Amino acid sequence: MRDSDSGLPLRDWIARVQERVEHSLDETIPKAQAIPQRLHAAMRYAVLGGGKRVRPLLVFAAGQVAQARDAVLDRCAVAVELIHAYSLVHDDLPCMDDDVLRRGKPTVHIEFDEATALLVGDALQSLAFETLSRAEAAPAGVLAMVNRLAKASGSEGMAGGQAIDLASVGAMLDRQSLEQMHRLKTGALLSASVMLGALAAGQMSETMAVSLEHYSKAVGLAFQVVDDVLDVETDTATLGKTAGKDAMQHKPTYVSILGLDASKELAEKLRLEARAALTPLGASAGRLAELADFIVLRKH
Amino acid sequence: MRDSDSGLPLRDWIARVQERVEHSLDETIPKAQAIPQRLHAAMRYAVLGGGKRVRPLLVFAAGQVAQARDAVLDRCAVAVELIHAYSLVHDDLPCMDDDVLRRGKPTVHIEFDEATALLVGDALQSLAFETLSRAEAAPAGVLAMVNRLAKASGSEGMAGGQAIDLASVGAMLDRQSLEQMHRLKTGALLSASVMLGALAAGQMSETMAVSLEHYSKAVGLAFQVVDDVLDVETDTATLGKTAGKDAMQHKPTYVSILGLDASKELAEKLRLEARAALTPLGASAGRLAELADFIVLRKH
Repeated sequence: MRDSDSGLPLRDWIARVQERVEHSLDETIPKAQAIPQRLHAAMRYAVLGGGKRVRPLLVFAAGQVAQARDAVLDRCAVAVELIHAYSLVHDDLPCMDDDVLRRGKPTVHIEFDEATALLVGDALQSLAFETLSRAEAAPAGVLAMVNRLAKASGSEGMAGGQAIDLASVGAMLDRQSLEQMHRLKTGALLSASVMLGALAAGQMSETMAVSLEHYSKAVGLAFQVVDDVLDVETDTATLGKTAGKDAMQHKPTYVSILGLDASKELAEKLRLEARAALTPLGASAGRLAELADFIVLRKH
Repeated sequence: MRDSDSGLPLRDWIARVQERVEHSLDETIPKAQAIPQRLHAAMRYAVLGGGKRVRPLLVFAAGQVAQARDAVLDRCAVAVELIHAYSLVHDDLPCMDDDVLRRGKPTVHIEFDEATALLVGDALQSLAFETLSRAEAAPAGVLAMVNRLAKASGSEGMAGGQAIDLASVGAMLDRQSLEQMHRLKTGALLSASVMLGALAAGQMSETMAVSLEHYSKAVGLAFQVVDDVLDVETDTATLGKTAGKDAMQHKPTYVSILGLDASKELAEKLRLEARAALTPLGASAGRLAELADFIVLRKH
């Protein structure tokens, strides 16, 4: 974003990015009057007016490191958020986590119906790639972004992590298996968000690539550890989604495997690891460093 | 494909393309030993060893018109077939058409389970875009293909048609609304298959673009009209999927709106229209002309 934004306190910068992304998402998803209206209304319901927009924040923060253009970052931010939103809609379906509450509102299949929720997820995924393919940057770079996002979303990324998660219900995973599951389920898309932000500039030095991959892995894992802690420590109203669900569903979590205190220590260790990975990038990585704090120290 | 293939009888050419596509699909989908194994096994079950591969046939036939390279056409063919396969898996789910038989085998959610079927569809869609992004052609052309495929798959393409289809159960559509539904539900991806085959060459004359769009629209609609006729006239064993389902589910079809004879006449009219659209392209469009016959005159 504008140079003048670089001096903003993190809270204000976050609010500005969130507002910008909300506007881009609103522009990207067809209006509720467009046929088929019910599907478009449900897509808008699933995506707009909520969410922390963590992935778009990572896109814009990484974009500062690589000095990418905002117009390209907008497309990347929308694409990763649409993939994330589609995964939430499908995860909440009765055959998956069977949840009724998301971002403080009834889930899509409750507010609309199951078939519509299925199609909402499918169409949001298509829209993510459609949006990204329109990014106004060097075509080879845009293709690299499409490739990275597709890999992060598929059977060896997010969808694969979800499959492992399903298979793990009621099972005792060891810490290594749990980590592998989360690297796919949430880590892959968080990493892709960072890398897309940097790729948006069209090129990336080897140093930058290595630093950002390392940073994004640590942050991705930290995000999940904190999620597991919050699931135990926070009430449903604050969380905006059903609290205590993991234990109820007998899902292995960092808390169930390591205990609460060790999980908090791990999150702190990963936060420091993420910040350390940014050292070679100097001041340009300031927002990424702040986001590592934001992700680990959040309360919901 | 090779020049020597151009003299092959249609039947042999089709068999050769089908074999080639089967091989590419097998190479593209991760092996069943790759983690998560159950998901990969289910993806392979959903895609391999069946299907007429109509969309890949259109890709290769259109590729001949534009003189595209086979290696690029392979990626296009795999991408459109993966999108088609994902749509079948999701359409068969209980919250959609709730079907137990597909291509003569139990549907994915019957053979595996619902959650796996959901993830199979999601992951196949990602894989389609991942594969297409790796096409070894000029990046701008590949991006145009990604964009076309994403549009054809989304809320203003296939997923949108599916939403209209759902809403039409038990309703009396007029012929125009029925046509609009099918233009989205099946027509968009069939059209995209033709256009991707031509785009694979990297560029397309205005004449070629106009001819192929016209051809693909006529063929796309003809395909659906014939589907409706076959649903009434053919038994389940021959069809490989549940016959008579449309009437049972009170879905409007060409047969229910126009009657059987008028539907057959419409299919014939569209076949001739498709062939006529190819006239400006000369002999290079020979396979596309033959495919129009193949699609309309098929028995299952």
